[in-house]
Amino acid sequence: MDSDKELQRLLDERQKLNDKINEYVKEKYQKYKGMSEEVKDDNPYSRLMALKRMGVVQNYEKIRDCSVLVVGVGGVGSVLAEMLTRCGLGKLIIYDYDKVELANMNRLFYTPQQVGLSKVDAAKGTLQSINPEITIEAYNMNITTNSGFEHLLDRIKKGGKNGERINLVVSCVDNYAARMAINTGCNELDQIWFESGVSEDAMSAHIQIMIPGETACFACATPLAVVESNEHTIKREGVCAASLPTTMGITAGFLAQNALKFLLDFGDLAFVLAYNAKADFFTNYMIKPNSECKENECRKRQAEKAVNKQENILERLEQRKKAAKEAFEKENKPSENEWGIEIVDESGPQSDSNKKDDDVKEISEQEIEQNNLDDLMAKLQNM
Amino acid sequence: MDSDKELQRLLDERQKLNDKINEYVKEKYQKYKGMSEEVKDDNPYSRLMALKRMGVVQNYEKIRDCSVLVVGVGGVGSVLAEMLTRCGLGKLIIYDYDKVELANMNRLFYTPQQVGLSKVDAAKGTLQSINPEITIEAYNMNITTNSGFEHLLDRIKKGGKNGERINLVVSCVDNYAARMAINTGCNELDQIWFESGVSEDAMSAHIQIMIPGETACFACATPLAVVESNEHTIKREGVCAASLPTTMGITAGFLAQNALKFLLDFGDLAFVLAYNAKADFFTNYMIKPNSECKENECRKRQAEKAVNKQENILERLEQRKKAAKEAFEKENKPSENEWGIEIVDESGPQSDSNKKDDDVKEISEQEIEQNNLDDLMAKLQNM
Repeated sequence: MDSDKELQRLLDERQKLNDKINEYVKEKYQKYKGMSEEVKDDNPYSRLMALKRMGVVQNYEKIRDCSVLVVGVGGVGSVLAEMLTRCGLGKLIIYDYDKVELANMNRLFYTPQQVGLSKVDAAKGTLQSINPEITIEAYNMNITTNSGFEHLLDRIKKGGKNGERINLVVSCVDNYAARMAINTGCNELDQIWFESGVSEDAMSAHIQIMIPGETACFACATPLAVVESNEHTIKREGVCAASLPTTMGITAGFLAQNALKFLLDFGDLAFVLAYNAKADFFTNYMIKPNSECKENECRKRQAEKAVNKQENILERLEQRKKAAKEAFEKENKPSENEWGIEIVDESGPQSDSNKKDDDVKEISEQEIEQNNLDDLMAKLQNM
Repeated sequence: MDSDKELQRLLDERQKLNDKINEYVKEKYQKYKGMSEEVKDDNPYSRLMALKRMGVVQNYEKIRDCSVLVVGVGGVGSVLAEMLTRCGLGKLIIYDYDKVELANMNRLFYTPQQVGLSKVDAAKGTLQSINPEITIEAYNMNITTNSGFEHLLDRIKKGGKNGERINLVVSCVDNYAARMAINTGCNELDQIWFESGVSEDAMSAHIQIMIPGETACFACATPLAVVESNEHTIKREGVCAASLPTTMGITAGFLAQNALKFLLDFGDLAFVLAYNAKADFFTNYMIKPNSECKENECRKRQAEKAVNKQENILERLEQRKKAAKEAFEKENKPSENEWGIEIVDESGPQSDSNKKDDDVKEISEQEIEQNNLDDLMAKLQNM
C-alpha cells in the first residue's frame, strides 16, 4: 500500500514535468503551423506533405479541419487514435469506460505507468503530448446506456472542429451491444461509420465501412443468435480472449488508412477487408443493404438513396474509378516525376489470378445467405 | 538557446523519475514471472498465454528464450521492436545510427520529448519501461562500415539470450547498402532473416523471408541498376519521401506476426507478402534462389541445402501443411472447444477466385525475369 502511494507520488510529479515539457514541444510545433512542406528535421509535417507533392493526395492540409469520433480505445482504437493524431487530424472525440490494466500491455499504446487511469484520460494525455495541435474530447462513458447514447448522438451532430457534424465515426468496441448502438445512431443520423473486430484467438480481423442506405448496415445481415457476451463476462469465468499487438496494430492500420482515404479523398475505399493471420489471407468485397433489414432507419435511408442515386457515395466512387482507369489506359505509361524519386508500381507484384479489377466484389442479399458472413456476424456477438 | 537548456534539464529530471517509476513496474511484473496463464487484471501475460489455451501456439513460453536482432529502428523497426517486447520476447538487439527528429513524428513510437536522443537509446528506454523483463542491447552504429559489419556478425553468432546464435535477424533499413550488408552477413552465417521495405510514396510495402540456400537471397534477383541513394541524400536536395504511420505500422505488424510464427512454430510463414495501400491489394508468394546468384556464399548454401533436402525448412513446412490439411479433411468439422469461446472461421469470408491453397505461389528463376520483381528490387535501391 505504501509502495503504491509512493508510486502515485512519483507519477504525479512526472505529470507536472510532462506538462512543462509539453509547453516546449508546443512551441516547436508552432514554428511549422499550417502544415509546412519545408524539408527540415524539425518540421513534423514534411513527410505527410510529401504525399501532396507526390500526387497521392490533392489537399493534405484538409486533415486539420477533419474530425473523427472513436468509440473504444482498447487494443485497436488507441492505435487508430495515435495514427490519426500523428497524421495531423484536427479533432478527435474518444469514448471508453475501461481502466488501463497491466493485462492490456500485450497491445500497443498504453504503458505500465498508466495502470489505474481511465483509458480515455491516459489516451488523451499521450496523444496531446505527441501532437499538441490536435483537439481532443475524451468521455469516460458507456454509450449503451440511455444517457450515453444521447451523448453520442449529440457529439456526432455537433462534435466537429467548429461545432459542425463529425466527419467519421469509427467503432473499435469489443461487444455486440455497443456495435448495435452505434449502428442505430448512425442510421438515424445518416452518418458514415467504420466497424472493426478482431477474433478471440487473435488470428483474424476485419474492418467494414457502413454508408447508411448504400451498403449493408450492421443489422442487415441478421445474426443467427443474439447472445450478449463481452470481455467482462468472459473474464469473470476465468478465461479470456487472446490478443496480440500484431493483429490489433494491423487492424488499426487498415482502419486509419481507410479513414485517411475517406477524409482526404484518394485511393479506393476498402468496404469489407478481412485478414487471416495464420495464412496471410485477405479478402476485399462490398455488401449491399438488405431491403428487409429489421432497422426502420436503415430501410428509410435505403429508400432515400434509391431516389437520388447520382448523389450516392458509391456511385461517385465507381465513376472516379472508371475515369482513372480510362485516363490510365489513354496515357499507357506512368508520367515522369519532377522530384526524381521513383515510386514502386502501384499495383505491386501480382499474379495472374489476382487481377486488380476483381478486388471489390459486390455481394447481393441473396448471396449473403449462402455466404459465411452470417457466421462472421454471429461470431461478432462473442467478441 | 536558454530554452533548450531548460528543456534538457526537465528531460534529465524526468529520466530520473522514470527510472524510479520503472522499479515499481518491475515489481509488478515479477508477480507473474514465468508467463502465468492466470486471468487477472494485473497479469501482463494472460492474453498471450490464451493463445496456448486456444491451441494456436503449442508452447508460448518459448518466446522468453528467443532473441531477435533488428537493424534499423525507424518507422517500421521501432514498431516491430515494441510489438515483440509486448509479446514477451526474451532478448532484442537493435542497430541504428540516426537521431530522433520532429520530422519522425508522423510515424508511431517516438515522441517529441525524445528529439535529439539517438534512436537506439530512445527506443531502449521506451521498450524497457513497457516490459522490464526484456534484455536489450542497443548499438548506435552503422553496419555498412567494416567495424560495424564485423560487430553485426559477432552479435548474430553470439547475441542470443545465453550467448548462443540469435534466432532471427530483421532488416528495417531504408537503403540498399545496408540491405546488401545484411544479405552478405546472413548468407555467410547461414542465418535466416526478414527483409522489409516501404515505397517512397508510402502507398506500398513488402516483407520477405530469406532462408539461405532455400529461398532467393537479396542478391538473387539482380537489380537493374546499382544506385546508392538513401533518406539522407534525398533530404539534402530539399525533397523527402512520404511516410505514414498506417503503412509503416501495418508493415511492422506483418513482420512481427511472421516473426512470432517463425519463433513459436505456428501458422503458415509468409515468404513474400506485398501490400498496396491505395487498392488494398495483397500478394503472397515464394521466390526460389537463383543458381547463378553473384554471391558465392548464396551459391554455397544452395549446394548444401540441395544435398540434404529433408532437413530444409521449406520442406518441413510443406509436410506440416500437408499433414494439417489431411487431418482437417479427416475430421471434416471443427472440434468443440472447452472454454466456450467461438473462433471466427480460420479462412475468413472468401471468394471463389481466392482459394487458400493458391495463396503461396512458387516462382522459378525464369519467371522472376518476366516478373516485375526486378523492378521492385531496383526501386528498393532508392529507399
